[in-house]
Amino acid sequence: MAGGDRNAAGDRLMSGRLEKTDAPVDAATAAAHVDPDAVVAVSGFGAVGYPKALPLALAADDRDLSLTIISGGSVGKEIDTALVEADAIARRYPYQARAAAREAVNDETIAFQDRFISKLGDEVELGHVPAPDVAIVEAVAVGDGWFVPSLSIGHTVAYVRAAEKLIIEVNDSIPRDVGRFHDVYERSLPPNRESIPLEGPADRIGDSRIEFDPANLLAVVETEAADDPYDFREPSATDREIAANLATFLESELERCSMFDDRIALQFGVGSLGNALMGALSSIDFGDRDVYYYGEVFQDGLLEMIENGTLAGASATAFALTSAGQQRLFDDIDGYSESIVLRPADLSNNPALIDRFGVVGINSAIEVDLYGHANSTHVDGSRVLNGVGGSGDFNRNAALSITTLPSRHGAETSCIVPMCPHVDHSEHDISVVITEQGVADLRGRSPRERSRLLIEHCGHPQFVDDLEAYVARGETGGGHIPHHLGSAFDWRS
Amino acid sequence: MAGGDRNAAGDRLMSGRLEKTDAPVDAATAAAHVDPDAVVAVSGFGAVGYPKALPLALAADDRDLSLTIISGGSVGKEIDTALVEADAIARRYPYQARAAAREAVNDETIAFQDRFISKLGDEVELGHVPAPDVAIVEAVAVGDGWFVPSLSIGHTVAYVRAAEKLIIEVNDSIPRDVGRFHDVYERSLPPNRESIPLEGPADRIGDSRIEFDPANLLAVVETEAADDPYDFREPSATDREIAANLATFLESELERCSMFDDRIALQFGVGSLGNALMGALSSIDFGDRDVYYYGEVFQDGLLEMIENGTLAGASATAFALTSAGQQRLFDDIDGYSESIVLRPADLSNNPALIDRFGVVGINSAIEVDLYGHANSTHVDGSRVLNGVGGSGDFNRNAALSITTLPSRHGAETSCIVPMCPHVDHSEHDISVVITEQGVADLRGRSPRERSRLLIEHCGHPQFVDDLEAYVARGETGGGHIPHHLGSAFDWRS
Repeated sequence: MAGGDRNAAGDRLMSGRLEKTDAPVDAATAAAHVDPDAVVAVSGFGAVGYPKALPLALAADDRDLSLTIISGGSVGKEIDTALVEADAIARRYPYQARAAAREAVNDETIAFQDRFISKLGDEVELGHVPAPDVAIVEAVAVGDGWFVPSLSIGHTVAYVRAAEKLIIEVNDSIPRDVGRFHDVYERSLPPNRESIPLEGPADRIGDSRIEFDPANLLAVVETEAADDPYDFREPSATDREIAANLATFLESELERCSMFDDRIALQFGVGSLGNALMGALSSIDFGDRDVYYYGEVFQDGLLEMIENGTLAGASATAFALTSAGQQRLFDDIDGYSESIVLRPADLSNNPALIDRFGVVGINSAIEVDLYGHANSTHVDGSRVLNGVGGSGDFNRNAALSITTLPSRHGAETSCIVPMCPHVDHSEHDISVVITEQGVADLRGRSPRERSRLLIEHCGHPQFVDDLEAYVARGETGGGHIPHHLGSAFDWRS
Repeated sequence: MAGGDRNAAGDRLMSGRLEKTDAPVDAATAAAHVDPDAVVAVSGFGAVGYPKALPLALAADDRDLSLTIISGGSVGKEIDTALVEADAIARRYPYQARAAAREAVNDETIAFQDRFISKLGDEVELGHVPAPDVAIVEAVAVGDGWFVPSLSIGHTVAYVRAAEKLIIEVNDSIPRDVGRFHDVYERSLPPNRESIPLEGPADRIGDSRIEFDPANLLAVVETEAADDPYDFREPSATDREIAANLATFLESELERCSMFDDRIALQFGVGSLGNALMGALSSIDFGDRDVYYYGEVFQDGLLEMIENGTLAGASATAFALTSAGQQRLFDDIDGYSESIVLRPADLSNNPALIDRFGVVGINSAIEVDLYGHANSTHVDGSRVLNGVGGSGDFNRNAALSITTLPSRHGAETSCIVPMCPHVDHSEHDISVVITEQGVADLRGRSPRERSRLLIEHCGHPQFVDDLEAYVARGETGGGHIPHHLGSAFDWRS
């Protein structure tokens, strides 16, 4: 073990990235420390900050691997493409967003469990998912019992704490100064868990480093591989109409609700629509209010809002930027670090903090049913797309949870449906639904009232008759929620 | 308004119950203050602590009433029977558990919205449900700007704060000393909400009184009407088998998980099964651990656990006891108040506190599907029973969430089903399912694995072939969750 005699390496400083640690080894040497059926917890969230050299070395390994991979959230092609195509992954938690992984999960070549983000660190530490044998993490600097994570924090704190061994990839292509964004705060586990002393959305209570037991360090590897980040499409006409409806609704809420008199905290789901919505918020007149972002990932739209002065501060667990956005961030780390804080995912997605700050959560879905249940993961109830991610944390705990989606996919498929064949967010979680057609404010409404509001304000005109006919069939059976189970899924061609 | 000139009443003390307040009026006089279409927030939770004289006076009112009634949780026959049968309720939040109310809700004679417990106080204060014109609360004592609630606290703090006016029913049949159980802690609203300074499940951070603005007091009414509490059936053979399986599982978790080394906090859902499970826990060997109850209601089974020394302390928001249990409590308020704490529902059901104390949540459901989604509210997706209540708060936020239910209802209906026609708790919320057949530990399992565990360990043998055939049909379509939408509801005769 490289860490066993680390003092022999002395004070060797390499560009300030390797302090008081042994000489780095190559990735293949480090990969040999990983057992063929190991449970591997990796850093990474928002498709950034994940290890790259080790997964590629494992993918090229001659051994017959059957790994369990636990990531924080989305990771890049080195894991969810290369390792999948090498048949090296047997089990995967909690999220995937690449074609190869998605196909393997849907074929059950990989046994996958979709999990909420906020509690995953606990689940790993408490043994609700397999206990990690080794954590493999990306860093921008490493020293004696500490490292500085790169562009995401995710659940790395918990994974390093739970894993028996540790391999660190130091990425020389990412400025070491990104540590200035970090606010690593380490919580104790239940039942003696303390309350989190965070008073404002962009306050700091931690450090830039994650600590580890030096005796656990197997190897340090150097890499210059770039992240494999999201690439967002340009906003469509529908995206812009949804954004305009959202802006109108938010302006009326700013007027109506005294909770927003001095301050508002917003969260947006990850994706092209979320990115488009963030960009469009610059058009809202927030008056004298302090506007904060308190979410899971930073997308390019947020950089725009910081630069034009819309945002007083922003907090997340990953920089899910495009390559251009990443460069923009690196070019002004000093400036951005004044208002941006990167936290562990159990704080960015924490139910108590989302509640405390009165966050307005804005997330998308595949479809919403007539009574306000949302499916954000499984097409036809079966084929998983990516995973529920943080949408569950925010929809449940936000002071106001808004689901945005187009009224239809393509020309033939309504996104307002009689019954969701998979429910990620129940009628209890969704307050407001917004499509390019309009806004359905479901708060305080009975199921019948919800169906009328959704059909009238959110449904695409071409499906209105079918949706009304479904409710009428449901009415014949009586009951609080008019459903007709015999035809609940007939609308699916 | 009686409260407008309260000093005229002077220091009139009536059995220590009415201090520095005006003379009580009769219920009909007080009821005349309530507008025919008023939004009325009432105290009450667990079918105790709700006002009785005012609802009966309103039910007898000559005016054509169209009230909106917001309770904390379950209330008694004076509201959900008498007022319903008088056609006086147009709209109802967030829970009902009486035949008359249930029928009216299913006929949509009453527009009902089922809500989670933990956030309802906020929803009332933030205007997500209609703002209350008047709060009507039951107390055991009232004074100048304060009252002591009776046998439940629920959301009374929030309702009194949100309502323009207040009517107080002082119930002389309940010992004034029940105030010794109370720990009323008042939180500020987001976005400047503080963290709750509660360090242990049975600690105290508040007071026995709820405060109000004396200018809002319309009237004080005296009553001696008894509560209309739950009546639990004797445990059935099936209940006892479920309890035995739960005990075996909990013992193995105590052994396995270091979180429980020193302390365990348990919560049980309300109902006859929950009550039976509580009673059965006395058989578990908890060793040197401190065992706490951190839940929503106290049921008779808990009194037993306190008396036999199983429990170190207990916290809830209502005494949902039988009449016999209530008498047992009243006979030894001194003794029980050493270990029992009654809190507002936004603390008893608080996501952060449930998480902080590592609560093991044990709740029931109508049915669970093959992939771990649970329906706890709507028969055939349409006809509501009571409401989701606190099960959502505990299933989501518990360190370990257990769903207990029989494997079948009657001889013909499986409670393990291909697809739930209504989902209150998603696959992300349920960790373990226990029936009288056995235990399915779903943690870390993929959907296919979950279906196999549920069929093998929890399904009734008579339905196993049908359930396996459904999964096989689902497999033909591919996908992460094997569903066959064309036959998902065929098992319903």
